[in-house]
Amino acid sequence: MNTNDSRLAKQVEFIVEIDKLKHVHRRTWLTDKSRRENDAEHSWHLGMMAILLLEHAQQPQLDLLRVLKMVLIHDLVEIDAGDTFAYDSVGALDKAERETAAADRLFGLLPPDQAAEFRALWEEFESRQTAEAKFAAALDRFQPMLHNYRTQGKAWQEHGITAEQVIARNRHMAEGSLAMWDYARQFVADAVAKGYLRQ
Amino acid sequence: MNTNDSRLAKQVEFIVEIDKLKHVHRRTWLTDKSRRENDAEHSWHLGMMAILLLEHAQQPQLDLLRVLKMVLIHDLVEIDAGDTFAYDSVGALDKAERETAAADRLFGLLPPDQAAEFRALWEEFESRQTAEAKFAAALDRFQPMLHNYRTQGKAWQEHGITAEQVIARNRHMAEGSLAMWDYARQFVADAVAKGYLRQ
Repeated sequence: MNTNDSRLAKQVEFIVEIDKLKHVHRRTWLTDKSRRENDAEHSWHLGMMAILLLEHAQQPQLDLLRVLKMVLIHDLVEIDAGDTFAYDSVGALDKAERETAAADRLFGLLPPDQAAEFRALWEEFESRQTAEAKFAAALDRFQPMLHNYRTQGKAWQEHGITAEQVIARNRHMAEGSLAMWDYARQFVADAVAKGYLRQ
Repeated sequence: MNTNDSRLAKQVEFIVEIDKLKHVHRRTWLTDKSRRENDAEHSWHLGMMAILLLEHAQQPQLDLLRVLKMVLIHDLVEIDAGDTFAYDSVGALDKAERETAAADRLFGLLPPDQAAEFRALWEEFESRQTAEAKFAAALDRFQPMLHNYRTQGKAWQEHGITAEQVIARNRHMAEGSLAMWDYARQFVADAVAKGYLRQ
């Protein structure tokens, strides 16, 4: 194929490269407990949740298109950097460094304008300053909490997580959606009451 | 939890229900041939492609947000109806009937306004009349062709598919993106030349 130098060819190579996200596994279990979830499925699920839960955002007039772009893109860096469990304080130490190197390599495969757009979207998500990023981050925290609750705390128990840790790690959800955070705190209280989660 | 009657509770039940899309497997193999792809991963991949390839749409001024909603939603009906292989002429006979019943049940789980929105988006995608639906459908055809090409025609060979069938089945891609269709036809020609695909 004599198209190696075209812009479309670069984009297609990136599309093939990101197929690897389907192999990055998270700690979260699917709700039927059959297997762990991968990052590509997780990102799709967040996209669906963004569409479904927009009305519950702290600023429901936000730009849904940018939220969708952010949640679809947010875990791409894990192709190189791997998934860092939300409660892994050791992994968190060099997470930013590993992920920045990954962003340099991965987004560098794109035409420069798209590399800049993807980089900006990923940094916006990570910085959690805009209304869109706060809502996207809230979705990214709500989904694994929901999966944990619906699997009787499977990943929480595997890693010895306590209710206090869950609350501390996820409380920023309220900045993106107070309604979602109120709902999620009910999961936590109910999970403690049912013995899925340690106090 | 005393929230069963709330709108958010309905939306959360739908979010749990659609977790099943991660178990609907397609004929397409991942590009490293390690396993078949599931519908949730596929839908995420189409979302990424919509963002990346928008400039190649026949009408690049189209509404990307609606394209993203369509590609994220388009396979939900397969939770009940299962995946129908693109070249399965027997399965195609009752595909519409099976998928309509699935849409009735699944979207019926949502609050009425969202049920209507999802139904309209799914029907728009299936009808392939709008610029957004034509582009979304082009992405949905381009992605498995790319995976087939990058796996040396694995799914094509498993099912005895010919180049003629590939062209006939996918030529509507040109309505969504002539550039993508031109590129995809190069896959096909090269796959035939390399013996991945029968003439």
